Amino acid sequence: MSEQLWGGRFSKSTDEMINDFQASISFDKRMYREDIAGSIAHAKMLAKCGIIAETDKDAIISGLRDILKKIEHGDFDFAVALEDIHMNIEKRLTDAIGEAGGRLHTARSRNDQVALDTHLYVRGQTLAVLGCIADLQRALVETAERYPDVIMPGYTHLQRAQPILFSHHMLAYFSMLARDFSRFLGVYERADIMPLGAGALAGTTFPIDRVFVAEELHFDAVYTNSLDAVSDRDYIMEFLSAASILMVHLSRLSEEIILWCSREFSFIELDDAHCTGSSMMPQKKNPDVSELVRGKTGRVIGHLMAMLTIVKGLPLAYNKDLQEDKEGVFDAIDTVKFSLAVYTALLRGMTVKGDVMKRAVTEDFSNATDLADYLVKKGMPFRKAHAVAGRAVHLCIEQGKWLEDMTMEEFRALSDLFDADIKEAIRPETCVKNRNSLGGTSYSQVAWQLEKAKALLAEEGRKQEELKKKEIRLD
Amino acid sequence: MSEQLWGGRFSKSTDEMINDFQASISFDKRMYREDIAGSIAHAKMLAKCGIIAETDKDAIISGLRDILKKIEHGDFDFAVALEDIHMNIEKRLTDAIGEAGGRLHTARSRNDQVALDTHLYVRGQTLAVLGCIADLQRALVETAERYPDVIMPGYTHLQRAQPILFSHHMLAYFSMLARDFSRFLGVYERADIMPLGAGALAGTTFPIDRVFVAEELHFDAVYTNSLDAVSDRDYIMEFLSAASILMVHLSRLSEEIILWCSREFSFIELDDAHCTGSSMMPQKKNPDVSELVRGKTGRVIGHLMAMLTIVKGLPLAYNKDLQEDKEGVFDAIDTVKFSLAVYTALLRGMTVKGDVMKRAVTEDFSNATDLADYLVKKGMPFRKAHAVAGRAVHLCIEQGKWLEDMTMEEFRALSDLFDADIKEAIRPETCVKNRNSLGGTSYSQVAWQLEKAKALLAEEGRKQEELKKKEIRLD
Amino acid sequence: MSEQLWGGRFSKSTDEMINDFQASISFDKRMYREDIAGSIAHAKMLAKCGIIAETDKDAIISGLRDILKKIEHGDFDFAVALEDIHMNIEKRLTDAIGEAGGRLHTARSRNDQVALDTHLYVRGQTLAVLGCIADLQRALVETAERYPDVIMPGYTHLQRAQPILFSHHMLAYFSMLARDFSRFLGVYERADIMPLGAGALAGTTFPIDRVFVAEELHFDAVYTNSLDAVSDRDYIMEFLSAASILMVHLSRLSEEIILWCSREFSFIELDDAHCTGSSMMPQKKNPDVSELVRGKTGRVIGHLMAMLTIVKGLPLAYNKDLQEDKEGVFDAIDTVKFSLAVYTALLRGMTVKGDVMKRAVTEDFSNATDLADYLVKKGMPFRKAHAVAGRAVHLCIEQGKWLEDMTMEEFRALSDLFDADIKEAIRPETCVKNRNSLGGTSYSQVAWQLEKAKALLAEEGRKQEELKKKEIRLD
Amino acid sequence: MSEQLWGGRFSKSTDEMINDFQASISFDKRMYREDIAGSIAHAKMLAKCGIIAETDKDAIISGLRDILKKIEHGDFDFAVALEDIHMNIEKRLTDAIGEAGGRLHTARSRNDQVALDTHLYVRGQTLAVLGCIADLQRALVETAERYPDVIMPGYTHLQRAQPILFSHHMLAYFSMLARDFSRFLGVYERADIMPLGAGALAGTTFPIDRVFVAEELHFDAVYTNSLDAVSDRDYIMEFLSAASILMVHLSRLSEEIILWCSREFSFIELDDAHCTGSSMMPQKKNPDVSELVRGKTGRVIGHLMAMLTIVKGLPLAYNKDLQEDKEGVFDAIDTVKFSLAVYTALLRGMTVKGDVMKRAVTEDFSNATDLADYLVKKGMPFRKAHAVAGRAVHLCIEQGKWLEDMTMEEFRALSDLFDADIKEAIRPETCVKNRNSLGGTSYSQVAWQLEKAKALLAEEGRKQEELKKKEIRLD
Repeated sequence: MSEQLWGGRFSKSTDEMINDFQASISFDKRMYREDIAGSIAHAKMLAKCGIIAETDKDAIISGLRDILKKIEHGDFDFAVALEDIHMNIEKRLTDAIGEAGGRLHTARSRNDQVALDTHLYVRGQTLAVLGCIADLQRALVETAERYPDVIMPGYTHLQRAQPILFSHHMLAYFSMLARDFSRFLGVYERADIMPLGAGALAGTTFPIDRVFVAEELHFDAVYTNSLDAVSDRDYIMEFLSAASILMVHLSRLSEEIILWCSREFSFIELDDAHCTGSSMMPQKKNPDVSELVRGKTGRVIGHLMAMLTIVKGLPLAYNKDLQEDKEGVFDAIDTVKFSLAVYTALLRGMTVKGDVMKRAVTEDFSNATDLADYLVKKGMPFRKAHAVAGRAVHLCIEQGKWLEDMTMEEFRALSDLFDADIKEAIRPETCVKNRNSLGGTSYSQVAWQLEKAKALLAEEGRKQEELKKKEIRLD
Repeated sequence: MSEQLWGGRFSKSTDEMINDFQASISFDKRMYREDIAGSIAHAKMLAKCGIIAETDKDAIISGLRDILKKIEHGDFDFAVALEDIHMNIEKRLTDAIGEAGGRLHTARSRNDQVALDTHLYVRGQTLAVLGCIADLQRALVETAERYPDVIMPGYTHLQRAQPILFSHHMLAYFSMLARDFSRFLGVYERADIMPLGAGALAGTTFPIDRVFVAEELHFDAVYTNSLDAVSDRDYIMEFLSAASILMVHLSRLSEEIILWCSREFSFIELDDAHCTGSSMMPQKKNPDVSELVRGKTGRVIGHLMAMLTIVKGLPLAYNKDLQEDKEGVFDAIDTVKFSLAVYTALLRGMTVKGDVMKRAVTEDFSNATDLADYLVKKGMPFRKAHAVAGRAVHLCIEQGKWLEDMTMEEFRALSDLFDADIKEAIRPETCVKNRNSLGGTSYSQVAWQLEKAKALLAEEGRKQEELKKKEIRLD
Repeated sequence: MSEQLWGGRFSKSTDEMINDFQASISFDKRMYREDIAGSIAHAKMLAKCGIIAETDKDAIISGLRDILKKIEHGDFDFAVALEDIHMNIEKRLTDAIGEAGGRLHTARSRNDQVALDTHLYVRGQTLAVLGCIADLQRALVETAERYPDVIMPGYTHLQRAQPILFSHHMLAYFSMLARDFSRFLGVYERADIMPLGAGALAGTTFPIDRVFVAEELHFDAVYTNSLDAVSDRDYIMEFLSAASILMVHLSRLSEEIILWCSREFSFIELDDAHCTGSSMMPQKKNPDVSELVRGKTGRVIGHLMAMLTIVKGLPLAYNKDLQEDKEGVFDAIDTVKFSLAVYTALLRGMTVKGDVMKRAVTEDFSNATDLADYLVKKGMPFRKAHAVAGRAVHLCIEQGKWLEDMTMEEFRALSDLFDADIKEAIRPETCVKNRNSLGGTSYSQVAWQLEKAKALLAEEGRKQEELKKKEIRLD
Repeated sequence: MSEQLWGGRFSKSTDEMINDFQASISFDKRMYREDIAGSIAHAKMLAKCGIIAETDKDAIISGLRDILKKIEHGDFDFAVALEDIHMNIEKRLTDAIGEAGGRLHTARSRNDQVALDTHLYVRGQTLAVLGCIADLQRALVETAERYPDVIMPGYTHLQRAQPILFSHHMLAYFSMLARDFSRFLGVYERADIMPLGAGALAGTTFPIDRVFVAEELHFDAVYTNSLDAVSDRDYIMEFLSAASILMVHLSRLSEEIILWCSREFSFIELDDAHCTGSSMMPQKKNPDVSELVRGKTGRVIGHLMAMLTIVKGLPLAYNKDLQEDKEGVFDAIDTVKFSLAVYTALLRGMTVKGDVMKRAVTEDFSNATDLADYLVKKGMPFRKAHAVAGRAVHLCIEQGKWLEDMTMEEFRALSDLFDADIKEAIRPETCVKNRNSLGGTSYSQVAWQLEKAKALLAEEGRKQEELKKKEIRLD
């Protein structure tokens, strides 16, 4: 009981079971660097403002650096009885340096301390996620460039719709990830606000300098309202929202990879390293990684749901419910980084079977739109042309053939606008080449997209460099 | 690589990172008893059906018992490279007993093996949850009985509405938990189906006896369709649904405990052991346990959301996404059991301040309905009586007094149906006593509820005894 | 303002905007039959207990029957100013029959009245859902019987795994729906509890007879705690849970139908009536219905999440938040019934392309397990046999052929346990026939499953007949 | 059947039931203005690029304007058989102007058309939400300014913690809403991308000018990848995320309003117009509006969960599941706007009972931190001072008094650092005044916050003006 910091108030020890129930050390210990960095900045500020002596500050900082080393060398026992990372470190500090340690918590509460640690941690991990996103975007660009001419069926409703370039398909995911990057920048911005100095909820009576702490820790802003500072979990909910949308993107890619690996599609071959076999069926080569990422999407969405439900209806300011903010976001961080990284590797090891894709394009009706467009260009209104193309498809299905197999007589019977050039107009290569509207699948449009993609990657790189300078350093 | 069981198929080792990503041993090792029990039953069946020799069976069973002992003594190193609990145990077994170990997996796939383990585990934990529910129900009954006469305000819209007995309020939670008990019985029933023998998905070519295995492991039924057996996760989704509804109940109780602990209500005092203090504010005594349970409700709902999303849209039969079924339900099991247990302790340590509750009842208008009812019983239509009572309240608010402070003249001015007995009719004790409709808050109705509650507890106890006999035994 | 029933208390009219915001008539009017049935039962009880006169009761009942007729003939204007279905009907009744109408609400509150209506409605709709489930189960049985001999690839990880019967695959969904049926019976049971008489929260001071009302409305039980009666929304959360799990099942079937309709699989052909085309691509025939059902799964899960979040943390007893219970469950009811019905039609119109499925089975390695099993039966330990089969597959892939194309020399080179009968052992028909374990895919096991399925349908039919007798009748 | 646009392909009419199931006209008709604006821009572009004749363009535009007028005058019958808003308008147009109408759909698909409409609609509604947010922020500032000196207890764990200014509390919500504003700007930005010209999925073979259309409709960007353009629903998921977080904020405010309206707190009085009464209990004045907003939070979260689940795992490009994107976001838009608007009204009508709040501050121990701080400033380490303050509270509780009632002897017995100025140091006004750290609750800090708030409102106003210029105009 003497271990418990509010001992003065209570005449009885807390049940051990309940202690376990509410201790957070098992998961919040991963924020030890943030906690130490925050305490160092706090101590510097206290000394600068004359609230503690310079000698105390020096003792605190050197004591904290010792603890950092111990933790990083695995020499630190985290005690459940001390509940959380903050008390584990502070207790050890006080054991080591005596009374000066007891002054560290001046003008600070666990409420704003934990808020600071979590802000620093989420901010840093958001930067890490940005890096992983850019890596996967780069892998997508490289994959697209490896197969510049491969034509595949484009699908709607999982029905072959129109021929497209495989590289165009890859770049669709690049675009999604570009939005993810920009969304996580928004998360970063709203995590990059400094809460320390809010005290328990109302600020502090000590003459502190919050802007100094913010500068020490490279925050762009400070919370302007102390109640808000300790009860805000927006940046966590927003991280989980952005992570959920990102995972939804990866789940779509996963679904496609899984489809393409099926014997029915056979569009790609994954590297053996990214697949597993079966304990019962020796022939199996399963796209487990993609299945897992697709599954883990549900996990991250679940964490978002949990967090929104947890905060809903809580009165101001801090409530213990908010301790439940960490495990979900920590797991989401791990999951998102991992998923992005394995996809970066998976795409690099993936082999595209251009011939199979090509065959899929020739043996279908995905050029029917081009047939209709042909007629429109000769003057037929679109809706009429669409109906004529429909009749052509119908005729082919009845006769078990494709549009390119139709005779000129058959074409003419449907409309006398058809000329010999119809054959060329419905070749897959022509269909692709002709979809030259901005952002379309034509060779030149995809080349243009690739240029834009590389320019964006460069810009994202610059942004990351800039943010890296804000990261905490403890050496 | 030689460690990987499908080695024959692949020419390349799996990336280590991906291995980690898809390994489940870190969380599925908690099912070691179920895995061993399942393998013992499987081996017995194989021998009985002449698929393996009796000597092999004996070697397998004694090898598995050795492994069980090692695990329970902490002498077993779980290897991530072996991916999951099944391969960790089988590999160790084969190392120990040689070729016979290699025969254990005959007529079995990991798909039906993991399904069996999870069924056994969820079934067993569902029984444990039933026990925790009954414990908390018992604590509610005891709490109700400790305070038989305490009157408190009943609330709607968090506005005082009508006086009720505190014991009546406690028993409302008893009723919710009784439904939880019955819902978890439904979960138990649908977890109590035996999947082994489904093989990878289509059954097996060996002449196995699934009913024998089911009897060995005390299952009430076997899956009648092998595809369904390996891809069904209903019992997990249903466990999480039942757990979510249960946690919602506890979150409501938590909200009330938190309110009642506030200085504004001051209806109860929790045991110091169930509260914590503040690092900054020495006077604080916070109902952390209730806040945590309220928060953890979001966590369990999140797991449900995750699971539904994971299974949604998966084709038959097994997909790797389904590996994501475990961590959520394991965490939900821990959370639900813990939450029920801490509430059982918390209620036992709780002190009810009957005097404060009583004061709250006298200083409000929660007897206004009784005033209206009084008039109805004298012949006034309800809607009119309601309007008269409204005017009485209005008059009192204007004059800063309560209904019991009104003079007979004031009553008569509102309606000449009022007689002297109105004073008695609106006393809180009378209000309570008169709500004698079945299930109402009157003293006799609550006494009747308590009788019913105890009878139900006895019945729940019998049910638990019956199910306990079905639990796996490994000694 | 005079329209508002609590007029006596307030000196000011409610803002119109807020009135709209909180009015529920736009959606709760669909419970008009339940409201009228409940009021008739309540009036009968009031008269029986001597709380109102027989003449009042008669006037009320005949007035309510008139209103019922008006509503069913579209002659009833629902007024937003009257907020909800209860006040719309009561006001009209009082306008029509005068003072007797004002007595109907005696010993009743809107809190228990709305609870009664919703219980009746959800109970009735649960029965309707049970019927729709059984209909779809019947369609599955018929579809299975239409194609008794069709062999298709069974999949795990969307990789062809082992040959199975198409009928076996259909019956996997039958099993899922059988569990849904049993889960909805649980919902029915917990909706089948009578709340009226709980009053606002605490019961009533009138000498009512709740059991009489329960019998009138064919309820199996009454709530034994009045606080619980008005604040319980378990049956709605549970309905939404059961509906979510059911929709997850349909989403899996949808995913498969969509895959099978793709040109790559081409396993089935849907009736034109169940597909749509494209405004731009004339050749498209899209499985829209399946896509919509898959999408609507998210919708129902969303309603479940909404409801759990709404109830979480609410203190007892009634809070206005609970008004949000209806729209979600109403929409879920419509969605579930619709989805089940369209699938019943879709399966009946579906054509299975047995030849395509058969070809898929012969051109793959899904008989590799059978090759391993062959060796095991000749005495090789399973793990070794699995490795040999893996090498055989490897050899075939390198040489671009299938297992059945291997020469006896090649077989013997892998193991001298191979004999001439290996060729027969790995034919798809043999593979299917040999998976004769209980619940396996063999012809005789599937025939047995069909028998069990029909017996279960008969039993489900009897259960429905029994519950139909409990439905409210108003003629 | 002749009504259906893909008629040429099918030999059979679609079942009416299924038609209803998949028709979207009942909800997508609210986008009629966006559909018409999009078609006008498209027609202008087609003419400019020489794809249709100027005369056709003029006929189309004047025909569309006629239809707009009809719809706005209620003279337009929306037909379910025509499925959606697009076909309803196009069919009417073609009926009116003949063949030119059939040319409007040239170089366009329903996939990119519906994407355009939804982008325009969500963009416009996001602007509307921004306006509602700013309105509520303004109401918060005004409410804060109305009560500049009112002191209330600040809470953590719903326990009184430290005295704060009521205005400070209001401004905490201002800060949350400021983040909401900035989050919705992010939503706006990612909705403000032009999809038209993506065709069904791959672009079009017509020489269109997408940038022209973007300029006509004031889009800041165009989609650079056509697959992405038709399958992106990020902006909807992101709208729902931002809306969920916003509603969580309002749910917290709601919880507090409900608490403050309780008889136990009695901190505020709502305008009668924003409350309702009870059908049974004449004295009730319920904060229904706040309860409804709190409840509707679940509803919006449910829509978010639905949308994430719907998109999860969908292959590219368009799938019919995506039609489920609208009802949820439409309902979320209505709910969010309504909730913000009612709170703007509610705050304006709210009366704060400063005297009750003041009394709550004096009768508690929320000045205990100040007592500890007092000692720290005299040189005691924080942890020790905290323990002394704890003992002081303990002593007072035992003697049934407050800290300000302690004698100097009692103070001295705890520490000889106490002097006479301790009495002044723990007065609530002093406690408030002394929390003068940046963002703290002191009078001057709150005044500074108010200045910042007004400056931000001005900036938000400028931003809205700028975006309003981008709105579609159809006159």
